[in-house]
This record gives sequence, structure tokens and C-alpha cells, in this order.
Amino acid sequence: VSDGDRGFPLAGDDLEARSVLEQLELAGGDGRFTGVAVSQARHVFGGMLVGQALRAAQLTGVPPNRRPNSVHGSFIGSPDGRLPLDYEVEQTRDGRSFSTRRVLARQSGAVVFVLTASFHDEEEGLTWELPLQPGVPGPEKLPVGRYATPFFDSRDVPVGEGPALPPHARRAWFRARQPLPDDQLLHDQALAYLSDHGPTRAVREPHADHPGVEQRMSVSLDHSVWFHRPGRVDGWLLSELSPIATGAGRGLAFGTIRTADGTLVATVTQETLLRVPGA
Amino acid sequence: VSDGDRGFPLAGDDLEARSVLEQLELAGGDGRFTGVAVSQARHVFGGMLVGQALRAAQLTGVPPNRRPNSVHGSFIGSPDGRLPLDYEVEQTRDGRSFSTRRVLARQSGAVVFVLTASFHDEEEGLTWELPLQPGVPGPEKLPVGRYATPFFDSRDVPVGEGPALPPHARRAWFRARQPLPDDQLLHDQALAYLSDHGPTRAVREPHADHPGVEQRMSVSLDHSVWFHRPGRVDGWLLSELSPIATGAGRGLAFGTIRTADGTLVATVTQETLLRVPGA
Repeated sequence: VSDGDRGFPLAGDDLEARSVLEQLELAGGDGRFTGVAVSQARHVFGGMLVGQALRAAQLTGVPPNRRPNSVHGSFIGSPDGRLPLDYEVEQTRDGRSFSTRRVLARQSGAVVFVLTASFHDEEEGLTWELPLQPGVPGPEKLPVGRYATPFFDSRDVPVGEGPALPPHARRAWFRARQPLPDDQLLHDQALAYLSDHGPTRAVREPHADHPGVEQRMSVSLDHSVWFHRPGRVDGWLLSELSPIATGAGRGLAFGTIRTADGTLVATVTQETLLRVPGA
Repeated sequence: VSDGDRGFPLAGDDLEARSVLEQLELAGGDGRFTGVAVSQARHVFGGMLVGQALRAAQLTGVPPNRRPNSVHGSFIGSPDGRLPLDYEVEQTRDGRSFSTRRVLARQSGAVVFVLTASFHDEEEGLTWELPLQPGVPGPEKLPVGRYATPFFDSRDVPVGEGPALPPHARRAWFRARQPLPDDQLLHDQALAYLSDHGPTRAVREPHADHPGVEQRMSVSLDHSVWFHRPGRVDGWLLSELSPIATGAGRGLAFGTIRTADGTLVATVTQETLLRVPGA
């Protein structure tokens, strides 16, 4: 899988013009599905695999009031965007209040991606979140960013504007351009998809001035999302992404996703391979 | 699995007096192993499952220079510490520079824990890390904390001492008391074990004043570790753990583990169930 911010809006990629829901569409049933979206380009946006695999997991008897609480994906091969992706779901466990699924994504028989998804019944409980500091510039007056597509709007908050962030961290607003149905599971799946936009860039950020970084090889190794609360992806969402550590050809990014009122709806981690010529 | 800071040093638990290496010991071979350590208590320290499963994965033909870069564990049952844990390893993939394993832990036939482990060849690469702010009090003058055991030393840095932390975050020093062999893989396994000490407490921290919190039900749901660089667990390590969000009966903690000179050796996340009476 190529890195999100390169692969996502690549010219000539016919997927670019398709909505998130079209890219998440699956055919099949009974624990075996095939991703409908096929591209003209070799690269695959990792978020598409995460979103499709979560959808496949959900379609194997998870009760509708049991929403995803976490997904952990491992990219273990090099899928080809021109070929269909096949998903096989293992129903690992259905417990009293949690369901666990494991999804294997294959291409031409070889495993290219594995997702573990956990689903939890709606519960009441104590609620707290890392507060959003006030003063983040809203999306309305910011220019549309270079990673925007016909179905996806993305606007970088300029570095230095708004409250202080950890070193090399970045803020961006994003949303799906088209309205989505009032189905929280669709929004969760779309959020899993969209959450892959940004982490590889965050990992690269501390090394932005390195002369070899433009010729990098930068691919996702793993991708995790924790869904803290319901949130809609057709409303503005604020992403804050920080690099944590790089070294040994890898790097880890950590991020939060909030609604426009500051509510923390999801946390994201991604480890990426980062091979830079001359490094 | 009970929460680390309750289950770890529980009185009457004979595991308390055993070294990390003894608790990680496995019998068997050929992809099927049994954990040797069995307790007199029902509860199981989650870190023991993470460490044992990582060890089992490593023992299935992972080349010795291929060290773990990440583990993602899912607690999906309620293991009984008085019964042995059986591990079955799936050799998911051996690629050019990465190996992936999936480990199923069973008790009386039922899956109670699943670990995905990724291993990566040693590589050179660009190196950066979130810097440690200066001024953290060293461990020498701090009192031994209440979670210390005969094999494990743990010392809380008093809240308010040292550089500012995110809200409700805590610092602690820890190390294995006995020297370990010069085998980085053992140190990685022991770090995976020890990294489960603290996250459930971090998730509870924002609610420490809630009257029901002492009667909580607090168990790990998932546990991830990313190994950025080699580190020894028989030297002092600094843990910084932050709650990210709680709600819906769950909570997420995020932490870093550094050597005494500030080098960031690992990142940890854990989602926990947090059910508090009257909440």
C-alpha cells in the first residue's frame, strides 16, 4: 500500500472520483466478500482495506447495536489496486457484550492484509477526554488542501496557528463532501477509511528537510483506530497527528480525531516503513 | 485478565515472587506451546500473556536478527491463572524483511487472547523521537512504590514534579530487579510483559475522585507495543502514561517508555473496560 498522501489523490486513479461508500462496497456473503472498487493504478490506499475489512467483519452476524470499539490492521503484502481484494472473516468470538472478528484480505490467494475488529454493545459510563485547547482556526476560512479529492475535503491548519502542538505535529480539518445516510456503522467504516489520510506524512515530518525524503519509500505497516464516541464523517472533523519516534527504517504516528465542537471521537496510530535514500 | 495494578502484586499470588523470565517460560515446540507459570490466584496479569505469546511467536522460525517491531494483543476471554495457557502460532508470513505471526492463547479449548506480532530485520534509517523535557526526577531518591514486587521495582514520580504532562498523565520509573542475559529478544519479551503495568490505572486517573471507582471492573481489552529501539529492562526505564479518552464503559491510555538517558525505546497503547458502579 502506498502512503496515504501520495496514493490517495493520484492523477489517473479512477477511484479518486468515487465516494467513500462506493469504495467500501462489497460483494458476496457468508463470511466471504470481494471489494468492488478496482483502480487503474497499482497502488492501493490502505484506508480502503481497513474500511472494507471492517465492513466485512460487521456483515458476519455482529448485532447492529454492537459498534466497533477498535480495529487493528496489519499490512503484510503489496496489494495491486488493479485486482480485486478478497476478504475472509473468522468469527473469533461472540461474547456477552463484545464480538471479535478477524479478517484476512487476499489477492491471488496471498494474504496481503489482516484486520482484528472488536465490537461492543452500547454502554453508559464515566466520560472524559483529553481537552481540546481553544483557538484552533475553523475550516471555513482555510484553503482547500492539496490532498482534497472530488469526494473528500481536507484543509491544513497552518503551522503555528492555534494552540501549541508537540514537535512536528500537524492539524487538519477534513470531511466527506457528500452527505451520508444516518447509519452510524457506515460513518464508523468511512472514518476507518479516512483515518489513513495523514499518518505517513506525520512520520515523515521530522525529516522534511532531508534531501532524500522526496524519493522515500513510505508504506503503512499497521493501522489502529479506537472509536470512543459516535461521529459523522460528513461533518467537519479535526485531525491532530504527531510523530512519536522514527528509526530503523520505521516510524510511528499518533493522532486524535474530533468533531468541530472538540469532542474526541477516535484515536489513531500507524506505524510506517520509511526508507529514505542516503539516510 | 485483571488490571495490572491490582493483579500484579496481589497477596497470595505465588507468581509475584517469580522473575520475569520464569513467568515467560514455555514448554513445547513446533508452533504449540504451554505457559509454565501457573498461579494460585484466578486473575492473570495481561502482560504475562503478551510476553508469553511474543515468545511463542519468536520460537517459530523467526530469524534471530529479526526483532519485534510491534505486537497487538486482544483479550477476548477470561483466563484463569490456576490453569495452564496453551499457545498456537500461525506463521502468517515470512517476507524479505518482515515476519508476521498470529498467536492464539487457549484455555480448556476456548480462545482467551490473540496476539499479532511483527518482526523486522535490523535496518539503518532516519532517527528522531519526541524529545524528553529535562528535569524529570531520577529514580534513586524516590521511594519504592506500592506496585513493586520481589522481581520488579517501580517508583512513581510525584505529580507536579518535573516538566508538565498532559492532564492526568503520570510518570514512573521501573526495572526488573535481577540482571537479565545479553539477549535483546528476552529484553523485548520482558518489556512487553512489564508494559502492561500502569495503563489501566492511567485510564482510571481522570475519575479517581468518583465514589464508585474503588469498586470498578477494570480489565484490558487490547494492548499494543511498538519497539522503536533496543532497550534493557534490567536498567531503569521511564514510563509516561496519559489517558486519552474514556466513555461507554471503556478507556484508552497512551504511553512512552524511555531509557534513563531519555531514549524512546517503546510506545504502548491499551484500551480497557472500565465499569464503575453508579457511573
